[in-house]
Amino acid sequence: MSDTPKFAVIGGGSWATAIAKMLCVNVDKIAWYMRNTSAIEHIKLQKHNPNYLSSVEFDTNKLLLTNDINEAIAYADYVIFAIPSAFLSTELEKLTVSLEDKIIFSAIKGIVPETSLIVGEHFHDTYNIPFDNIGVITGPCHAEEVALERLSYLTIACGSEKKASTMAKNLNSHYIKTKISDDIIGTEYAAMLKNIYAIAAGMAHGLGYGDNFQALLMSNAVREMKKFIRKVHKMKRNINDSAYLGDLLVTGYSVFSRNRMFGNMIGKGYTVKSAMMEMSMVAEGYYAAKSAYKLNKEYKAKTPIINAVYNILYEGGDAKQVFKKLTDKLD
Amino acid sequence: MSDTPKFAVIGGGSWATAIAKMLCVNVDKIAWYMRNTSAIEHIKLQKHNPNYLSSVEFDTNKLLLTNDINEAIAYADYVIFAIPSAFLSTELEKLTVSLEDKIIFSAIKGIVPETSLIVGEHFHDTYNIPFDNIGVITGPCHAEEVALERLSYLTIACGSEKKASTMAKNLNSHYIKTKISDDIIGTEYAAMLKNIYAIAAGMAHGLGYGDNFQALLMSNAVREMKKFIRKVHKMKRNINDSAYLGDLLVTGYSVFSRNRMFGNMIGKGYTVKSAMMEMSMVAEGYYAAKSAYKLNKEYKAKTPIINAVYNILYEGGDAKQVFKKLTDKLD
Repeated sequence: MSDTPKFAVIGGGSWATAIAKMLCVNVDKIAWYMRNTSAIEHIKLQKHNPNYLSSVEFDTNKLLLTNDINEAIAYADYVIFAIPSAFLSTELEKLTVSLEDKIIFSAIKGIVPETSLIVGEHFHDTYNIPFDNIGVITGPCHAEEVALERLSYLTIACGSEKKASTMAKNLNSHYIKTKISDDIIGTEYAAMLKNIYAIAAGMAHGLGYGDNFQALLMSNAVREMKKFIRKVHKMKRNINDSAYLGDLLVTGYSVFSRNRMFGNMIGKGYTVKSAMMEMSMVAEGYYAAKSAYKLNKEYKAKTPIINAVYNILYEGGDAKQVFKKLTDKLD
Repeated sequence: MSDTPKFAVIGGGSWATAIAKMLCVNVDKIAWYMRNTSAIEHIKLQKHNPNYLSSVEFDTNKLLLTNDINEAIAYADYVIFAIPSAFLSTELEKLTVSLEDKIIFSAIKGIVPETSLIVGEHFHDTYNIPFDNIGVITGPCHAEEVALERLSYLTIACGSEKKASTMAKNLNSHYIKTKISDDIIGTEYAAMLKNIYAIAAGMAHGLGYGDNFQALLMSNAVREMKKFIRKVHKMKRNINDSAYLGDLLVTGYSVFSRNRMFGNMIGKGYTVKSAMMEMSMVAEGYYAAKSAYKLNKEYKAKTPIINAVYNILYEGGDAKQVFKKLTDKLD
């Protein structure tokens, strides 16, 4: 690999668009794959993604836009996946180029429904990618604020410190600060779990609970997250670091959060189906709740919040009743 | 003391009013002291505090209202102080009755400016009250949501487990859940420090930082709080318990927070003086910032956020510049 590695962004959504924007500060050319050919044509002509973060203007000379995932991956050394986890398998089925020697970064923050694995584990298990070539890009960072160039901090985790640093350096800018970590499992689980807690926060809000309860819920959520992640992958980590607690808070408290919005609708009385239909974007926490709940049958961490969300989303539990019971388990 | 202890609430503000409301669920009669005689007359006639939480209706048969602090304290076994810390010394100077054998609970969440001590320490040092007779009532709990009877959780800390339980039992209701703790020093320091962090959160917001930064700031704040409290009083505590992290979050994120509002005005360009004049209520964090900063000269915890707030409030530091430097110290 040369000193100036090549990057590909996989995905056309808001987080993919934010990452493309961040990279373009530092990189002369990036490959950018998205399925939607009319969006590609629009960006080429108008310099803006028509569907997501449409205020962001791109220097199109820097973009190798393609709707062929193989072209994007073939171009790059570092491949950043930023598509909903539910679509990952379908996209990967299209691969004809090898992932060998590619450095795979997940910016997905979800779980692969077909394997119930976080994205890093999925690439490791399914494509034999060594953990030294697997990384995670995590927040606290809503794409919408990247578009506005509001100061945001990212944590870049990778089995290889050097590769984490390379990725971090290329995402840095006057509005992005980065730190690196070696906790690829823990940061990705945190990113996945926080979406479930954001759904819980939204449900609570929709049910009429107030700010006092919301703070109590988040304080319980981070303790629950710590227990869960410790069972999955025990190592020295401070759960209050920004990649864990910070990411939880930005999602649990922000009006931008799709997961919180989804939960809020259910708290207000929408059925799961109608809430999903109302939303034009996928709420990752919906899939995460199922996977985390099932995984936890093995790990047996004490997770009353995840259990409550699972119950409401998958077992037809009445949100009001389930939360009433949940409030007795929190402190 | 009888099996049914007597309670006095000292203070006429919103938190005092909320505590009076909570106690009235369980207690036949409470003494309630406030300076403002016209407020007392109004409550007697109209059953509502005219100035704070004025939606709350009281059963006035349950209230021994008085503007004589000695009458209220003489009546009670448990005395709950819920006045701004800046006024505590002035009020205590009026005492003619003894505090011996009284159980003193602080609901003040601030530091006594004259002694730079938290309220529990102040009573211990100045009035020789043993720590077994000192307690703390802490959130996460905004008074405004108590008025609305929205589910809230309190932590009741006391050197004596029995007295903590008695207080907890008498605050419990269908909308209040309580837990007890023996960390009277740590919970009270947390309640004091969180107001400084809420000012920081408000300043950041006023300066134009967004949700991503706010989450990052809170994640740093709880780590800083942990370091500070550990230096002051080392014991086994989980800083993510609701009395610490939960209380920080409700104050840092809520629109009800006076401290956050105060910080926000300064972030927007108000001078400290004009921000204080604009606000009709005292921002406890203003005094706390000075005391914590000075205390920390002894403890030497790493507290970049407290230092930044102190610099802006007391040393004329330019909020924009100070925060720009602060952002390099956070991660």
